[in-house]
Amino acid sequence: MNKFKIGVIGFGTVGAGVVETVMKNASLMAQRYGIEPVIARIADLDTKTDRGIQLPKGLLISDAMKLIDDPEVDVVVELVGGTTIARKFVSDALKRGKPVVTANKALLAFCGKELFDLAETNRTEIYFEASVGGGIPCIKALREGLVANQVTAMYGILNGTCNYILTRMENEKADFDSILKAAQQAGYAEANPSTDIDGYDTANKAAILASLAYGHWFTLDDVTVRGIREVTLTDIEYASELGYRIKLLATIRKVADKIQLCVQPALVSKKSLIGGVSGVFNALWVDGDIVGSTMYYGRGAGRAATSSAVVADLMDLALNRLHNSPRRLPAFPIYDEALALATKDEIRSRYYVRIEVANQPGVLGRMAGIFGSHGISIASVTQREPAGAGVKVPMLMLTESATQSAIESALNEIRQDPATVEPPICFAIEDLPA
Amino acid sequence: MNKFKIGVIGFGTVGAGVVETVMKNASLMAQRYGIEPVIARIADLDTKTDRGIQLPKGLLISDAMKLIDDPEVDVVVELVGGTTIARKFVSDALKRGKPVVTANKALLAFCGKELFDLAETNRTEIYFEASVGGGIPCIKALREGLVANQVTAMYGILNGTCNYILTRMENEKADFDSILKAAQQAGYAEANPSTDIDGYDTANKAAILASLAYGHWFTLDDVTVRGIREVTLTDIEYASELGYRIKLLATIRKVADKIQLCVQPALVSKKSLIGGVSGVFNALWVDGDIVGSTMYYGRGAGRAATSSAVVADLMDLALNRLHNSPRRLPAFPIYDEALALATKDEIRSRYYVRIEVANQPGVLGRMAGIFGSHGISIASVTQREPAGAGVKVPMLMLTESATQSAIESALNEIRQDPATVEPPICFAIEDLPA
Repeated sequence: MNKFKIGVIGFGTVGAGVVETVMKNASLMAQRYGIEPVIARIADLDTKTDRGIQLPKGLLISDAMKLIDDPEVDVVVELVGGTTIARKFVSDALKRGKPVVTANKALLAFCGKELFDLAETNRTEIYFEASVGGGIPCIKALREGLVANQVTAMYGILNGTCNYILTRMENEKADFDSILKAAQQAGYAEANPSTDIDGYDTANKAAILASLAYGHWFTLDDVTVRGIREVTLTDIEYASELGYRIKLLATIRKVADKIQLCVQPALVSKKSLIGGVSGVFNALWVDGDIVGSTMYYGRGAGRAATSSAVVADLMDLALNRLHNSPRRLPAFPIYDEALALATKDEIRSRYYVRIEVANQPGVLGRMAGIFGSHGISIASVTQREPAGAGVKVPMLMLTESATQSAIESALNEIRQDPATVEPPICFAIEDLPA
Repeated sequence: MNKFKIGVIGFGTVGAGVVETVMKNASLMAQRYGIEPVIARIADLDTKTDRGIQLPKGLLISDAMKLIDDPEVDVVVELVGGTTIARKFVSDALKRGKPVVTANKALLAFCGKELFDLAETNRTEIYFEASVGGGIPCIKALREGLVANQVTAMYGILNGTCNYILTRMENEKADFDSILKAAQQAGYAEANPSTDIDGYDTANKAAILASLAYGHWFTLDDVTVRGIREVTLTDIEYASELGYRIKLLATIRKVADKIQLCVQPALVSKKSLIGGVSGVFNALWVDGDIVGSTMYYGRGAGRAATSSAVVADLMDLALNRLHNSPRRLPAFPIYDEALALATKDEIRSRYYVRIEVANQPGVLGRMAGIFGSHGISIASVTQREPAGAGVKVPMLMLTESATQSAIESALNEIRQDPATVEPPICFAIEDLPA
């Protein structure tokens, strides 16, 4: 039986998961593919901590370069994270013609083009299933399963931390800060949670998905990002009454032959399939011109789920080695360099708007008038009874489809209205077919 | 640019869809994969009917054997259906060393072993993504994306016709016969609907999935099949009141190192993701020992969706040809020949039981006693007010987990109870994690 010899750099949570997965299911994979995955080397600066895995003596070393240079290593798994030393390790492996598997979305979105060019030059390749959607084989679905399709739109819940926080806020009727704290204690959020909750992690993933779907390099800079810090329990509850949930949604969509690429809290119907994706789970919805709507669902992070995706990549590369077909699947073929981002005049959606207004006569008419003057139709209005005389009252409006520029202009005007007590809150509504 | 020359046998609905898809998106696929798919030949007995597709003269012929023998044909797509002439075409193509793409689940479940052996002998291969789940790339997910996993369970809504009928029955509060008739008129059900509604189509797909997951050849004979004819509006409505929907569910599950393989109407929670799969859509839920739960969703049938899957297979084979790596992925590696089917004593689930009983004192206690005497705990009971004096009353019981033999013995005893007015109705409840 042929063996495929794996070198793992980074023996942290995911690294240990990958090693454990290979050890547990190597013979099953060998039976399925006719080639046996073997952990040949592991490199980590920390060679002392017990990861609870029995390793042959000498397998774990501290010098990653030694692993990369080891002729007994067929493939390098980069699980260091970040964009500095990881970039060096990946580059060095590629320069030696060794294929690389990585789960590092930040690295790919930051310097993916450089790395994939380097892989091409050295006649080798990078696999990256675990970089988006954790254990969900959604990169494979997009690159291979849906290859016959022009992608018309993708919608993703791609960050487990955010979805966990939003789900708990809704279920427990608790505010953002208290749930964030609880999530940090439970290990579902980092001590410094910004990458997750400010939307950058999702944006990196959205850039990767858009690049794959549209044959154009998109980076983090191309993504309009808005995180979940500004999602309040108040809006979660109002949205719920109206039949919606608020999700941190990546929206990647062809609009007038340009691309809308944004990450933002958005309302999705509770009845939609994606509206049912709760807790740490992720989902990617893909609309193709041939296949119609499809969705892929699973654990978006965590040791085991991420390992499942990393090892699937390893086995794909094992087949490429077994059949002497490196670079079988072009990674990011660029065929639409001129593709541009859609402007605010081109991006349309429906909107949820909450305006806290003074309890005065004529305010509703004036607000509705502002929307009308910007060409925005109101689909529904809910105005609550004031809690007491003279106090502010919330006015909820769901609009019909409008451009982003129109809604921004309307909100600006509303902000300046003397009856507006607090800055208006606005989230897009994504009407996904269910 | 390399070309991959496709021969399509069967120019019906799906055949025309495949041809149209290749024509529409060939250049996009060529940009993505570096090899261009081209329709080289089409064979159909009917060369006259206008399919609305502009074809070069002479491309459409009536003699499928001429297509198979044509050296200009790199791959044969079998879209004839059935298990007789399709079997011959597929065999003949394989004998000539030509790879085959098929959407024919009946053929694979009927004589798959013979065909895959033939492919192996002739150093070629069969791809069959469209045979399960229509456009959903779920075969790829199972064979490749989840290769690192032992599959612990799969649950599938795999027949669009059944799901369409059950969804409409629930939404319109209509009975089975009237919706079946409407589905036939709308083209969502065949004139002879037995293959779909009696569960055999789903069972073929379940056999394919089980074979792929467990390294053992399962055929239709191994699947316990129960269709949806016996699903009444009454039970759909009672289930709904209790928070469930009735779906025709394929259940494939490892139980005590054996395999449970059945297709049956089952109750799933409305809150579960799979409970939200409605209309003609399909979904496959896969639990892996590493990845945890995943789900794949999309259109399970129809011209366009099926084409998407067929063309994805074609492009996989195109890469195999381009890189001279035929039989890259072993199709059905058999590594557990001794694997047995679970017995009724080993298969467990919760159950929904409806008993129409005479409105007499002591009946509830007696029924509960029967369950108890078979070791079955009752989770909840709902007994309705009778419509009038002395008439029958429905008694609904949801059980705790029990073996299939226990529930069958209990139902036998209940059937013979003097108070039982109609044969008791029983469906399994599948508690899928949401």
